[in-house]
Amino acid sequence: MAQSSEKRKRQDVDGGGLGDPEVSDSHPLAGFRLQAVLKESARDKVIFLHGKVDGDSQEPQDTVVILERVPFQADAVSGLLSQRPPVTLQLKNDIYSVYHLTPPPALNEIKTTVICPATEKHIKKYLRQDLFLIHETGEDYKAVTLPFIEAQSFSIQWVYNILEKKAEADRIEYENPDPEHGFILIPDFKWNQKQVEDLYLIAICHPRGIKSLRDLTSDHLPLLRNILIEGQDAILKRYGFHGNKLRIYLHYQPSYYHLHVHFTALGHDAPGISVERAHLLHDVIQNIESDPRYYQIRTLTYALRADEALLAKFREVGKC
Amino acid sequence: MAQSSEKRKRQDVDGGGLGDPEVSDSHPLAGFRLQAVLKESARDKVIFLHGKVDGDSQEPQDTVVILERVPFQADAVSGLLSQRPPVTLQLKNDIYSVYHLTPPPALNEIKTTVICPATEKHIKKYLRQDLFLIHETGEDYKAVTLPFIEAQSFSIQWVYNILEKKAEADRIEYENPDPEHGFILIPDFKWNQKQVEDLYLIAICHPRGIKSLRDLTSDHLPLLRNILIEGQDAILKRYGFHGNKLRIYLHYQPSYYHLHVHFTALGHDAPGISVERAHLLHDVIQNIESDPRYYQIRTLTYALRADEALLAKFREVGKC
Repeated sequence: MAQSSEKRKRQDVDGGGLGDPEVSDSHPLAGFRLQAVLKESARDKVIFLHGKVDGDSQEPQDTVVILERVPFQADAVSGLLSQRPPVTLQLKNDIYSVYHLTPPPALNEIKTTVICPATEKHIKKYLRQDLFLIHETGEDYKAVTLPFIEAQSFSIQWVYNILEKKAEADRIEYENPDPEHGFILIPDFKWNQKQVEDLYLIAICHPRGIKSLRDLTSDHLPLLRNILIEGQDAILKRYGFHGNKLRIYLHYQPSYYHLHVHFTALGHDAPGISVERAHLLHDVIQNIESDPRYYQIRTLTYALRADEALLAKFREVGKC
Repeated sequence: MAQSSEKRKRQDVDGGGLGDPEVSDSHPLAGFRLQAVLKESARDKVIFLHGKVDGDSQEPQDTVVILERVPFQADAVSGLLSQRPPVTLQLKNDIYSVYHLTPPPALNEIKTTVICPATEKHIKKYLRQDLFLIHETGEDYKAVTLPFIEAQSFSIQWVYNILEKKAEADRIEYENPDPEHGFILIPDFKWNQKQVEDLYLIAICHPRGIKSLRDLTSDHLPLLRNILIEGQDAILKRYGFHGNKLRIYLHYQPSYYHLHVHFTALGHDAPGISVERAHLLHDVIQNIESDPRYYQIRTLTYALRADEALLAKFREVGKC
């Protein structure tokens, strides 16, 4: 860390364009010009920028800058609040009020990650795509979505490898081997299995050809009930994690077209649990019980990214 | 907002314990002592504190303080980066480096929500708790949930203040004044209205007595369609934000029992959008169209925190 310490010392001095020219030249963002906002998250308080900086070379260099606000530390903020920090009232209603509080600089750093020089690939990696909501009717599914799924060549060989025990056989947590009503339960790759707080398993059904929610009818109720009941039992036995603390759901659209069900810890804010993508297995069973053709006739709502081929198909027919 | 404006002016002056004693006494956090950290999220950069403040009364008052870092605004940070802000190197590896950047105070406010005096219920509301899933049948609603709602005394005076223009009248974005099929559209407290990336508005219906999803029947279809269509129109006109980029939904259970609908930007990972809490308005309308008594007879699934009184009620009848 010798090099870092030295740099740190030099750049500490470089405050807001002050200091001698030599020191200023070492600023990692010298001459920064914004090219594009790649992505931002208001919830996470993070922003990804593509910019040009002058750097040490002759040519301006492409740079990705990631700015992220830092989490609060209880001790520090408690001390701050007790010292009457400057506040500006924004609104007041009954017992609720909202202020803007200006903290001292030391409590308010921004974590700044710089990738320089950044390649085209780095820039694309962080580029956020706009999302568009699709309301897919049963007719839309038959006319647009189904032909799209059938024409795509996205391989699901890796799924068949699991089902045939050609891969990941040692990761299987539970199996009902029935070819029509059975399934394999396996940890999702996103879960490291070290703590149950972010528990995440997947049930992959044995029967082939059930592409998604749209194919489900009353014929599949025994399969769905097996996944719901046996999946919960297996997780309780293996992890001591009770079914009433599990979120059990399907995605529509799914990321691959072989029916599978997600099991995640209810307290875990897993990706893909939002209302426009997830469908609770409990509700799916209830819907099919009340109308066996529910998923063939129903309008289903989901989001597509601007660069997705399916969105282009919907645009061709004037549906988005 | 006359009162607020005056207060705002006074508190602007009250910087860090400076100023004359009279002005200092008006500080909303005067004498703050931390009682407990109720909850915190490193991802969201938010912390919920329970404290005592001296306030205007004789007795110290229980107060909930919510501190949240604000999202970045692209223009402001781009300007900041071009001006060689003070940075401190933390680590460097190949093309990747990480710095701490100290921004000027104006770019670095903390949104501070104060609830004072806070009741036991407010404090509990923000305390992190285990979650349990409830599958509430139509009978459960009538036998357990409805009596619970009717017995609770959680005030919704602040909602009536908005509907009667006694508070926040200057924040109203759109109104359909029809007492039976009308509503008011207003920005949610969580949104600072500075960027559309985390757009968040609430439609509060004019008719009173519609507690939640469970009360909705075909009688309410005109109201729901008004909210869906006019809400999208108003947001398009005001913010240039198209309806196919909006997530429009109700919560069940809601946080207060006067019917309201959430409008959030589809790209914004807002709290409360997960499948076990959110119900797309588009789906709600479709469900009632297919069965006018859908929300009276349907099993609805949702999560309750370990400390919630409603969970205790379900446990009393052996349902959880």
